[in-house]
Amino acid sequence: MDALQIARRAQEASKVTAAAATERKDHAVRAMAGRLASNKERILAANERDISEARKKNLRDSLVDRLRLTAGKIEARMRALEKIAALPDPVGRCFRGKSLPNGLRVSRTRVPLGVILMIYEARPHVTVNSGALCLKSGNAAILRGGSEVRRCNELLGGLWRQSLEQAGLPGDSIQVISGSHQQVRDLLSQDGLIDLVIPRGGEGLVRAVSKDSKIPVIKHYSGVCHVYLDVIADIEKGIEIALDSKCLMPEVCNAMETLLVSTGLSGRLQAVVEAFERCGVRVKGCERTRSVVGRVEPASEADWRTEYLDNIVSVKMVNDVREAAEHINLYGSHHTDSIVTEDRENAREFTRRVDSAVVLVNASTMFCDGESLGMGAEIGISTDKIHARGPMGLEELTSYKLVIHGSGHVMGEPPAFRPASETV
Amino acid sequence: MDALQIARRAQEASKVTAAAATERKDHAVRAMAGRLASNKERILAANERDISEARKKNLRDSLVDRLRLTAGKIEARMRALEKIAALPDPVGRCFRGKSLPNGLRVSRTRVPLGVILMIYEARPHVTVNSGALCLKSGNAAILRGGSEVRRCNELLGGLWRQSLEQAGLPGDSIQVISGSHQQVRDLLSQDGLIDLVIPRGGEGLVRAVSKDSKIPVIKHYSGVCHVYLDVIADIEKGIEIALDSKCLMPEVCNAMETLLVSTGLSGRLQAVVEAFERCGVRVKGCERTRSVVGRVEPASEADWRTEYLDNIVSVKMVNDVREAAEHINLYGSHHTDSIVTEDRENAREFTRRVDSAVVLVNASTMFCDGESLGMGAEIGISTDKIHARGPMGLEELTSYKLVIHGSGHVMGEPPAFRPASETV
Repeated sequence: MDALQIARRAQEASKVTAAAATERKDHAVRAMAGRLASNKERILAANERDISEARKKNLRDSLVDRLRLTAGKIEARMRALEKIAALPDPVGRCFRGKSLPNGLRVSRTRVPLGVILMIYEARPHVTVNSGALCLKSGNAAILRGGSEVRRCNELLGGLWRQSLEQAGLPGDSIQVISGSHQQVRDLLSQDGLIDLVIPRGGEGLVRAVSKDSKIPVIKHYSGVCHVYLDVIADIEKGIEIALDSKCLMPEVCNAMETLLVSTGLSGRLQAVVEAFERCGVRVKGCERTRSVVGRVEPASEADWRTEYLDNIVSVKMVNDVREAAEHINLYGSHHTDSIVTEDRENAREFTRRVDSAVVLVNASTMFCDGESLGMGAEIGISTDKIHARGPMGLEELTSYKLVIHGSGHVMGEPPAFRPASETV
Repeated sequence: MDALQIARRAQEASKVTAAAATERKDHAVRAMAGRLASNKERILAANERDISEARKKNLRDSLVDRLRLTAGKIEARMRALEKIAALPDPVGRCFRGKSLPNGLRVSRTRVPLGVILMIYEARPHVTVNSGALCLKSGNAAILRGGSEVRRCNELLGGLWRQSLEQAGLPGDSIQVISGSHQQVRDLLSQDGLIDLVIPRGGEGLVRAVSKDSKIPVIKHYSGVCHVYLDVIADIEKGIEIALDSKCLMPEVCNAMETLLVSTGLSGRLQAVVEAFERCGVRVKGCERTRSVVGRVEPASEADWRTEYLDNIVSVKMVNDVREAAEHINLYGSHHTDSIVTEDRENAREFTRRVDSAVVLVNASTMFCDGESLGMGAEIGISTDKIHARGPMGLEELTSYKLVIHGSGHVMGEPPAFRPASETV
């Protein structure tokens, strides 16, 4: 099928999903959860074949790990689908309603965006989450996953189609495709049919999609995230948050890459470095860090901009919250940054100054995650300032219309345009 | 000054405006109102010179009319500035706050977008409104008006600079420029420094800007707007709304171009056509219209897609609200459409089915206007679904950040990454 045909089918389907009742959309999402359960063995087998093929292509071990599905991961997706089905439907919700002095009643009503194109690397769970989020928010989805998980994605695409049709919705509401790069480029020029593009993956993929797309793109390029241990931080809490932010999932975009430490904490720096070392994390440091803990290897200017996605951390000492914020705004990627402090004023200063999608106080950067934030799941994380910022859930996949109710309201004076009103 | 320099200055200024106190921003806006008052004669003289030059270039009379400022129009801008200064500041406002079961407190805080580039044709009042809206929402603005009003815009740009400096804000917070088309193209490639582009003008300008821009663009191409007289409409009210929508300002984007009339109102069609004719409006009609009022000239397929911006209306008879909505969604520009009806169910059906930025019930399309809707003024009207839809005011010129407060929250089990916690 060519790109135009895929986009047209999606647009046709989007007219149905936009008007579909909540129950019908939830039915399809829950039916998908059921199909994941009853097809677990088939999914795992398809995933196994994808992985053995990926191995032949000498993919990095850490990448192969990201591809791997397990029974536990499939069950987690089933639970995520149930959560999404249980969330309130954003479509039709009214907000910012008011009455004007002239008697007009104005409000905004949430409507779906239309057709959403997702382009992502690896990780077949995106095929499950993104389909459900797009559908529940009344949109049609075109999902183009990485070629490394083609078999698994095609299987999941078939299950989506069955689930949609079981709920009385068009099978084309969620199209899982695995065409060529040329097909992707062709899709990116269908700005009359597709309303939003969300790329998810390495910086190379995201830049290529942004460059080629004639359709609006919402994205983040990379995640150079920080934790700042403030001078009056509870150091045990600080170390725990820093380790969680770095070590729990070093490969994800919201993992910490640089730890900023207040110079007031020089005396505790040894303990901080040791904690990382004990967890198998390689530590690089600025000059001031190395003057306190001599064995730390030097960090270069490039390190402050590097997204390691690995068990490496760079440590920099800063004078205060202001310098921390300046470092973050200059070297970071406006993604997710956290301060550990007991001082409310410093917390306020940090949240005000740091220009990032997600700013945390006394919490791990791991919490920049739609599922953890009660959004059911996330379709992506935006570091753009247009439309949506941070983890994108259901509401971020909608637009709105202004609805204005009057009782014969006109703006001009009737006689001005009705010279012979008595005869009308 | 070259584009890069302009953009860099704007970005520098935006750091100050983003953090500026409400009082300081309002001070600059009110100072501008004062300067408009004390420079009224100079502004009118500059406008007069712009107009006499435009006349030499054989500009259309209707266009020349749009360029013209009067003392009354300047006073209206002064009032608009006062209104904008009196509006609540969107920056720093929190919304969608909630506490999660794990104790994390999540909320969103409004932040400015950064630097906004406006590219517009004619109408010097845009230089006043847009500067004030960008500033009040904490952004820096680059305003590039039409060359036809260059003198007047340069004068207004100087007044903005003085007003900003009087309030202790950088003069570069609002830069009014009038460089070449090449400069505009260069600005449109500064996606690292400029955050949003808003083109305002004819479809040609908007398409050219959208095509060239590497920066997100919010826009509408055209305004093919409709009024639908439903079968149970109060016909007097209907005619009044239709005339107001067509005749008050035929040259604006939210003026009605096509009137849809329910076939149930055939008996009143004669009166409708007469009302338009009495106001000097040329009437074109579909076959069914012409079978009722024979003297109406035929409308072609192209008419349904035409934005006349003139005293012309095309009339089409439709069977019901469903057919009206289908016509609007197919031929319209998703801008502003109105139904006149006494039937709540038909009103609901119309607002639900019509996929437009602004949908009205029993009110003139003239009300699609930021000033009339209590937004102080509008910087433009969006028919896009991304970010903002309809008239764009202060809130639509902001983004947000997620702020999350915890008390030492980590996601993993501490022992998992702290094998020797007792020594930390």
